[in-house]
Amino acid sequence: MKEIQQGESLLIRDVEVGRARVNIRVEGGRIAAIGADAGGEAAVVIEGRGAVALPGLYNTHTHAAMTLLRGYADDMPLQDWLSTKIWPLEAHLTGEDVYWGTKLACLEMIRSGTVAFNDMYFFMEDAARAVDEMGMKAQLAYGFIDLFDEEKREKEIKATEKTVAAIKNRRNPRIRAAVGPHAVYTVSPEGLRWCAEFSRQQNIGIHVHLSETDQEVKECVEKTGMRPPALLDKCGCINPRTVAAHCCWLDTADCTLLGDRGAYASHNPTSNMKLAVHRAMPYAWLKDAGAGVCLGTDGCASNNNQDMFEEMKFAALLQKFFWNSQTLLPAEQVLAMATANGAAAMGFDGGRLEKGAAADIVLLDRNAICNTPLHNPVSNAVYSCNGSAVTTVLCQGRVLMQDRVVPGEEEILEGARAAATNLLTRAAEARTEE
Amino acid sequence: MKEIQQGESLLIRDVEVGRARVNIRVEGGRIAAIGADAGGEAAVVIEGRGAVALPGLYNTHTHAAMTLLRGYADDMPLQDWLSTKIWPLEAHLTGEDVYWGTKLACLEMIRSGTVAFNDMYFFMEDAARAVDEMGMKAQLAYGFIDLFDEEKREKEIKATEKTVAAIKNRRNPRIRAAVGPHAVYTVSPEGLRWCAEFSRQQNIGIHVHLSETDQEVKECVEKTGMRPPALLDKCGCINPRTVAAHCCWLDTADCTLLGDRGAYASHNPTSNMKLAVHRAMPYAWLKDAGAGVCLGTDGCASNNNQDMFEEMKFAALLQKFFWNSQTLLPAEQVLAMATANGAAAMGFDGGRLEKGAAADIVLLDRNAICNTPLHNPVSNAVYSCNGSAVTTVLCQGRVLMQDRVVPGEEEILEGARAAATNLLTRAAEARTEE
Repeated sequence: MKEIQQGESLLIRDVEVGRARVNIRVEGGRIAAIGADAGGEAAVVIEGRGAVALPGLYNTHTHAAMTLLRGYADDMPLQDWLSTKIWPLEAHLTGEDVYWGTKLACLEMIRSGTVAFNDMYFFMEDAARAVDEMGMKAQLAYGFIDLFDEEKREKEIKATEKTVAAIKNRRNPRIRAAVGPHAVYTVSPEGLRWCAEFSRQQNIGIHVHLSETDQEVKECVEKTGMRPPALLDKCGCINPRTVAAHCCWLDTADCTLLGDRGAYASHNPTSNMKLAVHRAMPYAWLKDAGAGVCLGTDGCASNNNQDMFEEMKFAALLQKFFWNSQTLLPAEQVLAMATANGAAAMGFDGGRLEKGAAADIVLLDRNAICNTPLHNPVSNAVYSCNGSAVTTVLCQGRVLMQDRVVPGEEEILEGARAAATNLLTRAAEARTEE
Repeated sequence: MKEIQQGESLLIRDVEVGRARVNIRVEGGRIAAIGADAGGEAAVVIEGRGAVALPGLYNTHTHAAMTLLRGYADDMPLQDWLSTKIWPLEAHLTGEDVYWGTKLACLEMIRSGTVAFNDMYFFMEDAARAVDEMGMKAQLAYGFIDLFDEEKREKEIKATEKTVAAIKNRRNPRIRAAVGPHAVYTVSPEGLRWCAEFSRQQNIGIHVHLSETDQEVKECVEKTGMRPPALLDKCGCINPRTVAAHCCWLDTADCTLLGDRGAYASHNPTSNMKLAVHRAMPYAWLKDAGAGVCLGTDGCASNNNQDMFEEMKFAALLQKFFWNSQTLLPAEQVLAMATANGAAAMGFDGGRLEKGAAADIVLLDRNAICNTPLHNPVSNAVYSCNGSAVTTVLCQGRVLMQDRVVPGEEEILEGARAAATNLLTRAAEARTEE
């Protein structure tokens, strides 16, 4: 697998896009030409025969390093799960853990066709190091949680400033900083206002959880007289740089607000089903209101994988099931959520197989069982395949996986395994010492 | 890959079951010993190091040959979908099509860890031929649809008798016949009674669709004064040999009836979500009533794959989401639905990794990303992995896949592709001639 240098060209030869067979020429990280006639000499040629090309996928809500907690605790009541399992373990997390957890998440996402993700967690400088090494794109936010306490707020402000500065200092155009006000029930209005103002000053994104549960909405109304979107908006947190995750319990006025502000809603159907939120994001209302609608896996504690192909199927099916419509969210639209809409939500130019777009390209095995027969490539991608059909991934023209090989895979699996074991050991030792 | 002969022994060495490392000794198609000390000389040795063993999966409701229609039509209103897409194509199906479609389904199921399936379709002698060649177990039913017409009923009776005789004549203990009264809205009470009586005489299973949609229930009550389970029961179709698919719109009395009769309910969450049935099978009520609850993928037109690992995740998550409980249908229980309960539903002895049980054994790659880290093998199998983690499959001691190789895979993909293309061509020609 050859690293493409800036200015070098790459050619994907004889690949299927829609029902046409085309060549895709990549130069300077962008699609320079696409069509039956595209071609010419190229430094690197990838054989596309036997493959279907799709735009690379954008995962717009996750907590990447939580791969280390995959399967650690399931099937529990939410509060128990958080307070007895997740939080006690997270209290022992180190930057090194987050590095290995994020490496594992990147590996998992690359293998299942994802080129970019929107992350909120801790030790984000270490996450940035992992993303940098793996060659993906990401928007990284420190999870800002002040619990309505002024002292904690000051600490979170410093942590956010430090994280943003560190990520900006990398000067890597693939890696962007964002602010991460966790949610209206964990961040004070003062904290939310600071995040909004800081994101405006720094011209960076906002990544927030919004109206995930009925309880969140009810408590917010009781406490503030406002529903969560209105409260966030009053604090300046709803704008075109905002990605709001979950959005399960929005009403029509909430959707209108998000649409009017040009904000993005990240649908996380698998997590919502696992945590029994009991209502699916109102996709049709958001779309009608003109809000951007994109897709994310959420973290591995509530999913438990990072496969955006699986997430597309869950999204298309949950919308149909909950909103009682066999035609809602058809395959083409869920693919757009997972590609072009996701790229727009994170402020990246990508998610389209068009001349001039960033060369985020995924090849699927045309001869996989999930693509046999191949009446409709988009239907098969959404409803039949999972990420295991992906053979080759390009992110801004850089080859991250070719013919199912990601360089360094064994080392990442070993490192992540060791980090998970050590984390559990440290947590157990701390319990013993108490 | 060596074919194990009757009486020969096989040993899976050093494999993880639960958190223990064991050997599994197979003799005469059964598990002869399992444990750290199990061993001895064996004709065939399979290296289990680096693998997690699970019981083979049982898919208790599908229309296998519909793999040929994968992705042919999606995202349409149900009646349109059936009348303009599915039925016109099915009118041109031949036995050869069903053979290739079933071969493809078997290949897909084997690759994703399924050893047995419960099928209802047409040309079931050809399906039986495919199952026989692939080495799986199956219960095969001709779909009996008389549309309340006496003449049609006589034809369906003859077709059922012929199919059952042909399958019994194979004298293959892996392949069983069943009767397949389609549903209360497509089969007259006289047809249902004949099916019940014939299944009793022949001592074979009953495979039926039950209470899939609200409309089915309402129309049945309007027409007969009875809900579908009561009507089926009155006609003799609810007994311990019955597998009733879907069961979405059961009430508590319906569940009690199924439990009292010792019948089985096959949960088909993916299909139910895609077709927007708007209610999830009442798993808790069925379990409390003592009914058997198992799992199935349904056919590829409404799923669009045959991956029981994916189906387990959909089941565990849909139950939680719809019934508003974070603890409902935990991973261990959904695995039991997909294994031991499914085997019981189809009258096979299997689905358990225990001495004396049929040697239906699936090995998962312990080093797959979905199994990293491995805090909990069952959680990872249900929530994190899909069928692509399966490396090796044994069905009654016979090796159907080893290290991801299924003999004849290329030929099956080619044959199925050609059959699908030819079917579409014949249907298009017929439309032109009209």
